[in-house]
Amino acid sequence: MENTLQQQGRAAREASRVLATAGTEKKNAALEAIASVLTDRQEEWLRANEQDLEAAERAGMRPALIDRLRLTPERIAGIVEGIRQIIVLPDPIGRVDKMETRPNGLIIGRRRVPLGVIAIIFEARPNVTVDAAALCLKSGNVCILRGGREAIHSNRCAAKLMREALAQAGLPGDCISLVQDTRRETANELMHLDEYVDVLIPRGGAGLIRTVAKEASVPVIRTGEGICHIYVDNEADMDMAARILYNAKCSRPSVCNAAECVLVHREAAEGFWEKALPLLDGREVELRADKPGMEILGARALPASEEDWDTEYGDYILAVRTVENLEEAIEFINAHGTGHSECIVTADYFKAQRFLDAVDAAAVYVNASTRFTDGGEFGLGAEIGISTQKMHARGPMGLEELTSYKYVIYGEGQLR
Amino acid sequence: MENTLQQQGRAAREASRVLATAGTEKKNAALEAIASVLTDRQEEWLRANEQDLEAAERAGMRPALIDRLRLTPERIAGIVEGIRQIIVLPDPIGRVDKMETRPNGLIIGRRRVPLGVIAIIFEARPNVTVDAAALCLKSGNVCILRGGREAIHSNRCAAKLMREALAQAGLPGDCISLVQDTRRETANELMHLDEYVDVLIPRGGAGLIRTVAKEASVPVIRTGEGICHIYVDNEADMDMAARILYNAKCSRPSVCNAAECVLVHREAAEGFWEKALPLLDGREVELRADKPGMEILGARALPASEEDWDTEYGDYILAVRTVENLEEAIEFINAHGTGHSECIVTADYFKAQRFLDAVDAAAVYVNASTRFTDGGEFGLGAEIGISTQKMHARGPMGLEELTSYKYVIYGEGQLR
Repeated sequence: MENTLQQQGRAAREASRVLATAGTEKKNAALEAIASVLTDRQEEWLRANEQDLEAAERAGMRPALIDRLRLTPERIAGIVEGIRQIIVLPDPIGRVDKMETRPNGLIIGRRRVPLGVIAIIFEARPNVTVDAAALCLKSGNVCILRGGREAIHSNRCAAKLMREALAQAGLPGDCISLVQDTRRETANELMHLDEYVDVLIPRGGAGLIRTVAKEASVPVIRTGEGICHIYVDNEADMDMAARILYNAKCSRPSVCNAAECVLVHREAAEGFWEKALPLLDGREVELRADKPGMEILGARALPASEEDWDTEYGDYILAVRTVENLEEAIEFINAHGTGHSECIVTADYFKAQRFLDAVDAAAVYVNASTRFTDGGEFGLGAEIGISTQKMHARGPMGLEELTSYKYVIYGEGQLR
Repeated sequence: MENTLQQQGRAAREASRVLATAGTEKKNAALEAIASVLTDRQEEWLRANEQDLEAAERAGMRPALIDRLRLTPERIAGIVEGIRQIIVLPDPIGRVDKMETRPNGLIIGRRRVPLGVIAIIFEARPNVTVDAAALCLKSGNVCILRGGREAIHSNRCAAKLMREALAQAGLPGDCISLVQDTRRETANELMHLDEYVDVLIPRGGAGLIRTVAKEASVPVIRTGEGICHIYVDNEADMDMAARILYNAKCSRPSVCNAAECVLVHREAAEGFWEKALPLLDGREVELRADKPGMEILGARALPASEEDWDTEYGDYILAVRTVENLEEAIEFINAHGTGHSECIVTADYFKAQRFLDAVDAAAVYVNASTRFTDGGEFGLGAEIGISTQKMHARGPMGLEELTSYKYVIYGEGQLR
């Protein structure tokens, strides 16, 4: 006997057969319908959100988290605006990357196709429900959404409205579905729904992502783990280095492309801190330094522990490490980074090139803030997350990164 | 305390830092050195193989399997020739697919890099050891090879010789390593060596591949499961259909791109079998047919069971299924295929296009044998296997499919 989630999986697989061959016009019409219904019936969505907010308050949730959970007419307008941006993006599906006629006359082309069914496990942000669904829909993928318990009323309402819009546009409602049961067991079951799920993308904290990567038998794309470093070389422009560090650390400390650790060339330390401290002081950034760093920073810093080198603070805290040279910086980054975004600040050409070559990360910067690692900034238009793995896609994942390909072969009776 | 396999993993990771930035000339020199040492010291390799053959005979291994295990001077020459073909292929590493200057002046490029450390679990074919190692080396990937117990002496010798050649060429010997212990436990451990292994590629029978896909926490690329279909439409050239089926079934039944099942349009059945039977009779192909098929084939066929629709025979056996129309054929293929290679034989333009669109497989053919699904035939030069999954790479995997990419960003102090 199939259980509820298996039924949902099977329905998703069936819907994916239809969606995979739906044209761009039809998919855009469905996205338009979603944008309209979320606008026209936002009262319904806001009321559902109110239920989640009340429950969160009763449960004593922290105000910052309650704020993340909250929908407002402005936030809904922002979400709807996001859908409209996806509508105007080019559809990657059906594009033929390569096509050639082989010596035996076979015409072989590589055509972009959807991945199929994408499951997304995420935490308590109701906007993710719509963002993720819209990106999947445009790229021809059916999605199974599994949000956190805290946002269940908001998510149920959003999913219901989106499914109505799909039906209006002549697509199966099952192109978007929500796991209704938010117990831990259903997340676990989803991770093993190999028969129906092609890819699983966890979106949330490091704990969630590690658990999913470890447990799932469905293929996983790891996203959003960011322990990013800024390496300040002795040949850096110290003003530039200070501004880059300040931007990378403080412009939005909670996001994954924020810097968590600065590596300072021993010879650069004094000149660099002279420029950097006044900026960091303005945000009361807590510094956790190694021994040579403490010698310069004195009472301004706390001594770092081994744990600090492997921590994503997501806060106004910065680890400080002293290195003797570029190679030590590279080695440290490759040992302690999460493969997200890494930066060197230097005026030396050869050091810049060496850093780009040797650092193993999704995005490697010379003289720019790591905060640019983002689908919009990279010109992808939108993103479903930032992959820190090497298989399939790396860095910001836009529409094309949600596709696969198939070889199509036109013959005239060729035999081998 | 690290155990042996963890030490091997760590050494592989360290070697990968060197190999990832080694230039094409150096990698080609190492491949040349491997080709030379395997030629010059083939006596050693043949003697080691003799030990495996003797053990296999003592253990009562089937002659066909013993033959697969056997090395001969001719086979070694073939393996060495394979290495030379890889030397002349273009190196994908370092190629920049896309590069653009963003409005803020950032220059952002996407540069091909190796996946890192690739583990390959395979069964008793000593040629795989060298083939796989050579493809990994050219694409800048370190490999950890874990072959079957039956070929352990041959594999140890090949690995030893290749590691000597690497050292001669100035690359770390650990770019290629063999798991020395062939107990089941080490394969299992390798599947969970997340810290050091980026990708795991199982090469072998369906049982091995399913186990690895199910058990591994390391990302896996599934390859080589092939239940391939030929759909004979009522508007097919029946001569062509018969020749394609015969080629797809009989030219090499043991390989993954061989056909296992023919779907025959009800109206095509009589005309098709009239042409096909004489060909299939020549190889005494066993037919296992559904009820309508039995009515036409009579004593020439056995009745098929449900199991037949999901079996990769790898032998002179063919499942026969009757369908009412194209849509039924597509549905059947999407339900029972393994996503490998599928073919329609038809003269109808719209049916051909519909089949290409709707069939979900790595390679979809119109009027040509499925046997063409192969890296060489597709123009990739060589292949490490044929992926039947959608993530990362699909179909024949050549050098480029063994790569990832990183974004390299050139800035002048940009902040976000």
